[in-house]
Amino acid sequence: MTDDKIIDGELWTDKDRISYIGPSVDVSDKKFDREIDCKGNLLMPGLKNAHTHSAMTFSRSLADEYCLNDWLHKAIFPREAKLTGEAVYWFSKLAYAEYLAGGTTACFDMYFFREENAKAAVETGFRHVFCGAANDFGGFESLERYYNELNAYDPLVSFKLGFHAEYTTCEDNLKLMSEIAHKYEAPVYTHISETYEEVEGCKERYGVTPAVLCDKLGIFDFGGGGFHCVWFTDEDRDIFKKRGLWSVFNACSNLKLASGITPVYKFIEKDMKIAVGTDGAGSNNALSMFREMYLDTVLSNVETHNAAAVDPFIILKAGTAGGARCMGLDDADVLEEGKKADIIMIDMNKPSMQPENNIVRNIVYSADNSVVKMTMIDGKILYEDGKYTTIDLDEVIRETNKLMQGLSDI
Amino acid sequence: MTDDKIIDGELWTDKDRISYIGPSVDVSDKKFDREIDCKGNLLMPGLKNAHTHSAMTFSRSLADEYCLNDWLHKAIFPREAKLTGEAVYWFSKLAYAEYLAGGTTACFDMYFFREENAKAAVETGFRHVFCGAANDFGGFESLERYYNELNAYDPLVSFKLGFHAEYTTCEDNLKLMSEIAHKYEAPVYTHISETYEEVEGCKERYGVTPAVLCDKLGIFDFGGGGFHCVWFTDEDRDIFKKRGLWSVFNACSNLKLASGITPVYKFIEKDMKIAVGTDGAGSNNALSMFREMYLDTVLSNVETHNAAAVDPFIILKAGTAGGARCMGLDDADVLEEGKKADIIMIDMNKPSMQPENNIVRNIVYSADNSVVKMTMIDGKILYEDGKYTTIDLDEVIRETNKLMQGLSDI
Repeated sequence: MTDDKIIDGELWTDKDRISYIGPSVDVSDKKFDREIDCKGNLLMPGLKNAHTHSAMTFSRSLADEYCLNDWLHKAIFPREAKLTGEAVYWFSKLAYAEYLAGGTTACFDMYFFREENAKAAVETGFRHVFCGAANDFGGFESLERYYNELNAYDPLVSFKLGFHAEYTTCEDNLKLMSEIAHKYEAPVYTHISETYEEVEGCKERYGVTPAVLCDKLGIFDFGGGGFHCVWFTDEDRDIFKKRGLWSVFNACSNLKLASGITPVYKFIEKDMKIAVGTDGAGSNNALSMFREMYLDTVLSNVETHNAAAVDPFIILKAGTAGGARCMGLDDADVLEEGKKADIIMIDMNKPSMQPENNIVRNIVYSADNSVVKMTMIDGKILYEDGKYTTIDLDEVIRETNKLMQGLSDI
Repeated sequence: MTDDKIIDGELWTDKDRISYIGPSVDVSDKKFDREIDCKGNLLMPGLKNAHTHSAMTFSRSLADEYCLNDWLHKAIFPREAKLTGEAVYWFSKLAYAEYLAGGTTACFDMYFFREENAKAAVETGFRHVFCGAANDFGGFESLERYYNELNAYDPLVSFKLGFHAEYTTCEDNLKLMSEIAHKYEAPVYTHISETYEEVEGCKERYGVTPAVLCDKLGIFDFGGGGFHCVWFTDEDRDIFKKRGLWSVFNACSNLKLASGITPVYKFIEKDMKIAVGTDGAGSNNALSMFREMYLDTVLSNVETHNAAAVDPFIILKAGTAGGARCMGLDDADVLEEGKKADIIMIDMNKPSMQPENNIVRNIVYSADNSVVKMTMIDGKILYEDGKYTTIDLDEVIRETNKLMQGLSDI
């Protein structure tokens, strides 16, 4: 799959890059380390999970009965207070295993214990973009340090400025966020308009929505984006459109926590920049980009009484190139010579991918993790036919279950 | 997993039946054909797809732009007019391959060319319950013949009385349906209240909803049920509750065709009999019971502003025991001595199934086809570690794609 169509041909990689994509040519004078007969399977750009909290795999199925506010305060925050760097290391590895099995090659991750998380990412070979999560409880004091250190840590790792959300960040700290963005001339990302209550609260505090507030404070002067965007007004969408900001959709988490359904079709009508994320495993509970893309496509249908409210190819591009560009991975967005070799192979011989009436629709409407045959990041195969090359899954399961013993009771 | 809880232990099968389930015991005096170390994986009843049109795999991704009415008349009916028994045979086999890979061990299927379909089912070893689909365009003349013939055809195959829908069946034919039900003292199943327009049309024609009409005409005097049930009124639910009728949910199809969202929580509040189905691949487009169960659990959350609107274990039971009882497979509903050995193994060592904070929630909220390690029907393993024992998938893919050449253009 190139940027806009599916072609018959072949693809070569050289180190971390794609060195050829096109029709089959004579390669008798070339030497490859390995040649793979794709047997009619599809190579496509890796899925990019543009909003997640990877290490929150610890909270999967742990507290499924709360709406967002109670879920955070009764189930999550007390357990997060007990998390250690070691725990974040292992639960992140569990998330990477799930990402790789689901064809996800990069994540835009908001969490803490970032040093240990970065170590897990580099050991795994996973492309990990950190997002700042500063708020009134902490994070502003270390934001610049992380920005400088993690952007110099390893080619697989990078860091974007970000704060948790308007409702956890006072006006002074929001202004500080804006100052830091201006100092580095850098984009800023945040949870935004996830729940109705959040937007109403912001309007009570400031008389405007979170997007209008951030815009006024200059937080988005150098770009960035928002996660969730469920309760955006038309004015919010206009601001995001005007500034070229990214709207990241998290359909499963918003359904599960009863937050709402994002009217994805309204963002597409305005030709906005969109991306797709899973949010964390505590509120999803899977980390499946396929399930997200499916729901981002079909959930608008009921509201609009239109079975074609959202074009599945637009969502597939949001889940791949969109996510990459959202998190600053412009060289890992599409399959093209010179781009990063972040590639997945879809097994077209799975029954759910047949017949091949329309391959893009098969993927968006029918695929799940079971169709992922191979996942490559930075030119290295990390997952192939159900096996991991850099993760010892048995060890990860053993360690994470051991760590759960300290987290189950609060 | 027994009827109501998950136990540590073992399970034996003897021919087509479960011969033991319980704690591990001394088996030194016993001889088994094969012993499988489940390694902590979960054995549970096979998923039961309680409403589908299996052979409609031909229409996957073929016409994704229509609402129900246009979809039927512009995309489906013209192609179905060109379908042959051979096509139904191969496209059903493709569906069986998808069912087995997704842990589904029985389907309640409404389609035609039933002889060829039954042949495919028995060859595969798949448990197939046919549902009558009579309407004004045909089917009433052969309903009794199929009822008698297919219920005597093979232990894997059975047939339930059914008609397509009120909106395709005139009053005389609805009365005929009732007469046949009374003659055989048998339950009747039908598409019901799938779209708002269908219910409004029925009210214009008869002054009452489809459920009230069927009830008045005596169609449900010996039980049965309805597929979709999206637009049920409280009165409709009361009728279904009073008569012990089955409501079968089809969340993906209803989203995709913009038909609506079934308020599943209202059926559970009344403690009604519920089951889960995928509908056909043309309108879903997958045949994944996991995706259905997930949506049947979370879709009620937004409407009710309650993150725990629907208990996932109730939905898991609807997707297994509920579906079995709905389609008359009372001896294939749960894992119990003497019950049919229709069993699946969930691979708990997949990252999406970890940590094991709550196994039932992991399955309903996080599982997809990739967690199915083994599928057994009637005591025979038909799918294990990605391989089929009775289906030549390469042949099925080759034949179905060949057949598509005659169906793509209309």
